[in-house]
Amino acid sequence: MRENIYKYLSIVLAVALIISLAYAFASNSKDVAQVSSGGDSKLKGNPNEEYYMVTFVSGIEYWKGCFKGMKAAADLYGVKAIYTGAPQFDVNQQVTVLRQVIAKKPAGILVTCANPDALKAPIDEAIEKGIPVITFDADSPNSSRYSVLSTGNYNAGAMAARYLGKLLGGEGEVGISTVTAQLNHEQRKQGFIETLNAEFPGIKVVAIVNDENDQTKAARQISAMLQAHPNIKGIFCTDALGGVGAATAIKEANKVGKVKIVSFDTDKGTLDLIKEGIIDASIAQGTWNMGFWGMTFLFYLNHGIVNPVDNWQKYGINPLPPVVDTGTMVVTKENVDAFYKVNEVE
Amino acid sequence: MRENIYKYLSIVLAVALIISLAYAFASNSKDVAQVSSGGDSKLKGNPNEEYYMVTFVSGIEYWKGCFKGMKAAADLYGVKAIYTGAPQFDVNQQVTVLRQVIAKKPAGILVTCANPDALKAPIDEAIEKGIPVITFDADSPNSSRYSVLSTGNYNAGAMAARYLGKLLGGEGEVGISTVTAQLNHEQRKQGFIETLNAEFPGIKVVAIVNDENDQTKAARQISAMLQAHPNIKGIFCTDALGGVGAATAIKEANKVGKVKIVSFDTDKGTLDLIKEGIIDASIAQGTWNMGFWGMTFLFYLNHGIVNPVDNWQKYGINPLPPVVDTGTMVVTKENVDAFYKVNEVE
Repeated sequence: MRENIYKYLSIVLAVALIISLAYAFASNSKDVAQVSSGGDSKLKGNPNEEYYMVTFVSGIEYWKGCFKGMKAAADLYGVKAIYTGAPQFDVNQQVTVLRQVIAKKPAGILVTCANPDALKAPIDEAIEKGIPVITFDADSPNSSRYSVLSTGNYNAGAMAARYLGKLLGGEGEVGISTVTAQLNHEQRKQGFIETLNAEFPGIKVVAIVNDENDQTKAARQISAMLQAHPNIKGIFCTDALGGVGAATAIKEANKVGKVKIVSFDTDKGTLDLIKEGIIDASIAQGTWNMGFWGMTFLFYLNHGIVNPVDNWQKYGINPLPPVVDTGTMVVTKENVDAFYKVNEVE
Repeated sequence: MRENIYKYLSIVLAVALIISLAYAFASNSKDVAQVSSGGDSKLKGNPNEEYYMVTFVSGIEYWKGCFKGMKAAADLYGVKAIYTGAPQFDVNQQVTVLRQVIAKKPAGILVTCANPDALKAPIDEAIEKGIPVITFDADSPNSSRYSVLSTGNYNAGAMAARYLGKLLGGEGEVGISTVTAQLNHEQRKQGFIETLNAEFPGIKVVAIVNDENDQTKAARQISAMLQAHPNIKGIFCTDALGGVGAATAIKEANKVGKVKIVSFDTDKGTLDLIKEGIIDASIAQGTWNMGFWGMTFLFYLNHGIVNPVDNWQKYGINPLPPVVDTGTMVVTKENVDAFYKVNEVE
């Protein structure tokens, strides 16, 4: 009798064990099947995978929008994004910071270059060590970086010309406040002037000043410009601090509303002046796009997802788009609220 | 004795069952954990989600490389990529095909435009209906497409100039075979000529012919060019059929090796002529990049993954990079084998 109980118990337990093992095995194969069939598992990174963003003048608001995009992509893939940079506009300092980051052997680096030539050597060193590098905002075109994601500055100037041209009804004198000899700013200026000439022949650029990206200098220079050219009806500023300086100059000259301002970027100061109606519009750069797609490119590269042909490295094939224009948008009173949020980092 | 055996067997089986059940349970929770914690679940599409590629002259090899990239991305996200197009180079036919695709209400469309103006209306219609459209290779810049992914043609011409310039040691006469008045080809020609002028002042462009993208016409025109200018040492062809025609002309003139050819694209005919040593190099376009990143942009847009700010639609913010230069590469005898594979569709 007892013998039978143990015998039946053994049979029941054996059957239960077989079912249980079969289930465990099935669960496990399902798991394996998911990994091999589901494309998306490739898109899952390791939480210890570290990607750095390296900037210069690291405290300014502008980079926050870029890092926000990078962080969104890092969260999506389950990896870590770390922000750093040189506190000052100091090329040697930035090279030092970049070399410190390279020494940590991160999974990848997004870098904006205070100077294209000075950053070339450390970028090339990183890539030789197998750390992929992508530039954003300010490029180092002769380095071996995989891609650059930045604003098409000529197109940005053209966008400013079209907005100001319509605002002035296609007629009148305008001035420009810019940062002389800096490539980005020269391209914005050129796009602005050439588009006005081609599409708004009734508008004439009568003065160009160099504000050296300094709010006080901009205010002083633009005041002088308005005195020398009292018929000026519009000003294009190729840098954010120039725009804030222009607002000061126009308030002091009692010309608010009489002289239209189209500025650049979306610093809080600029957005506030748009809300107040002193700056008419500003050209916002696609900072979120720079960070988001830069991080995505690095991740896809590291995880073998971009693979146009096996051994592309051997054949000198670039598996990423080399140049991405991250675009611009016109910010006005109508949509200004959204741009306060674009730069917010939670 | 037997009682004991069944007793011990029962104990062993019970322990095994507990371990097995625990394992099955653990496997299962691991499974669940993977799905719920991973950000990557956002990157998993629905197998019924259909994305179309719409081309013109739909039978040519060139689009295969583009579709290969699109297919790779669609497989990655677990969605469907479908190839279609107008068989001829016929703008009305392409508009009809695109309208038929729109009527199927697909999840998204990648389209290359036989004519930028004619395709504008159907592209805008699709977007109004909520079907995102991205252009590739040949753009419709005034349409409301989100992005364009294409070759920076000026840069492609510059790349050809640098390769041919070095090959000729910076000296001699060269000719160009192109498709007159087609924007892509004009830009390639301009990039080629301006780069030679700037970087290889010892090289002179002595003749330019219009091959109308026709192999026979190219051979005839280039034969005439070689007779009129017997000192020509190099030819740049801005289109693949021009390159094949140039090879015929040079063989007939017994000038193989004496006249260097830099062609365009990676059709099988071109690659074979590179292997034979008759065409010296060709400029390959980033076709895989066009399809892969175009498909990725559409998927990320549809799945709310690109979201620089909530309600970006309302504020007129483009959540995608508007312009992507998908790059070019120099194909020579050294790396030609890889390019046979780039265009292969399994």
